[in-house]
Amino acid sequence: MQNTFLSLVRSRQSVRKYENRPVEAEKLQRCLEAARLAPSASNSQPWTFVVVNEPELVKQVARETYGPLATFNTFVPQAPVIIAIVIEKMKTIAQVGAYLKKREFALIDIGIAAEHFCLQAAEEGLGTCMLGWFNEKPIKKLLGIPDKKRIGLLITLGYPPEGYTVSEKNRKGFDEMVRFNLYRKPG
Amino acid sequence: MQNTFLSLVRSRQSVRKYENRPVEAEKLQRCLEAARLAPSASNSQPWTFVVVNEPELVKQVARETYGPLATFNTFVPQAPVIIAIVIEKMKTIAQVGAYLKKREFALIDIGIAAEHFCLQAAEEGLGTCMLGWFNEKPIKKLLGIPDKKRIGLLITLGYPPEGYTVSEKNRKGFDEMVRFNLYRKPG
Repeated sequence: MQNTFLSLVRSRQSVRKYENRPVEAEKLQRCLEAARLAPSASNSQPWTFVVVNEPELVKQVARETYGPLATFNTFVPQAPVIIAIVIEKMKTIAQVGAYLKKREFALIDIGIAAEHFCLQAAEEGLGTCMLGWFNEKPIKKLLGIPDKKRIGLLITLGYPPEGYTVSEKNRKGFDEMVRFNLYRKPG
Repeated sequence: MQNTFLSLVRSRQSVRKYENRPVEAEKLQRCLEAARLAPSASNSQPWTFVVVNEPELVKQVARETYGPLATFNTFVPQAPVIIAIVIEKMKTIAQVGAYLKKREFALIDIGIAAEHFCLQAAEEGLGTCMLGWFNEKPIKKLLGIPDKKRIGLLITLGYPPEGYTVSEKNRKGFDEMVRFNLYRKPG
């Protein structure tokens, strides 16, 4: 069991190519369950997960995720499933806190729940990609999401092609990211 | 290996009581490594983790996390370590995207990295609690964080007392959180 989580973290990557193969309901369910159990500010759980898996609707939603400015999302129509995470109201105490402390807790919470989903997917052998760039208004219309609500993120879900390799993670070094006791680097 | 991640998710909880016992450097290092490998919008990694473990400084920071309005944080001085996650600039492409799409990606990213840290801590037998309520200005002063930067979250870290039990998770039901293809509930 030692370092199981770190291995999972190392195996998770953004998958931008998908097999034409459906996702089993029980695997999808476990991904959603991992998200459901995510922590959130004051346990507000300010999210609804809309699972788009009706093929024609997936194509329509996918079409709103790329364009001349966002060519990096042209892979999206390959995904058999797209999740839209709708931001819901926080509990009053979290709202008050967010206001007083000028910190939008709901987005932090959405990130946590989305990553729970993606890590469980990685454990299931599935691939995901979080998308922050999409045309929100038409997607809300397609999915019947009320105008005043926001979509925090989209996630694509599906099987990566056989042999889709885990790329070496390109990250800041430890010394660049971590400081002890004082923000400023010593020396 | 089946459902290892879900077990970890179920075991993670907010720990609000700590033993008077230091955290081993290599365990702390693995928690930071899990955070370092977290995904982020355009791989911006918009975070610096300031590890506060100098006892006097921990007490001073802790003192700024509770007060008459925030009595829920009075446990903080027990923690041997407090992490302050400073929000750093995103890459230009992510900044442009966040602006055009009116979505503050950096907070989503902070949530993901913080949760990686907390899940690794849970695997190490350590307890954490994310704090969104704190007096940001004095803490920035204590840690030498530039005025114009923001602290996204604090995390307490330490050993829970023996027998600190995992509480049953109180969450929305699956049917309340998940919809298929359309936001509105059927019927």
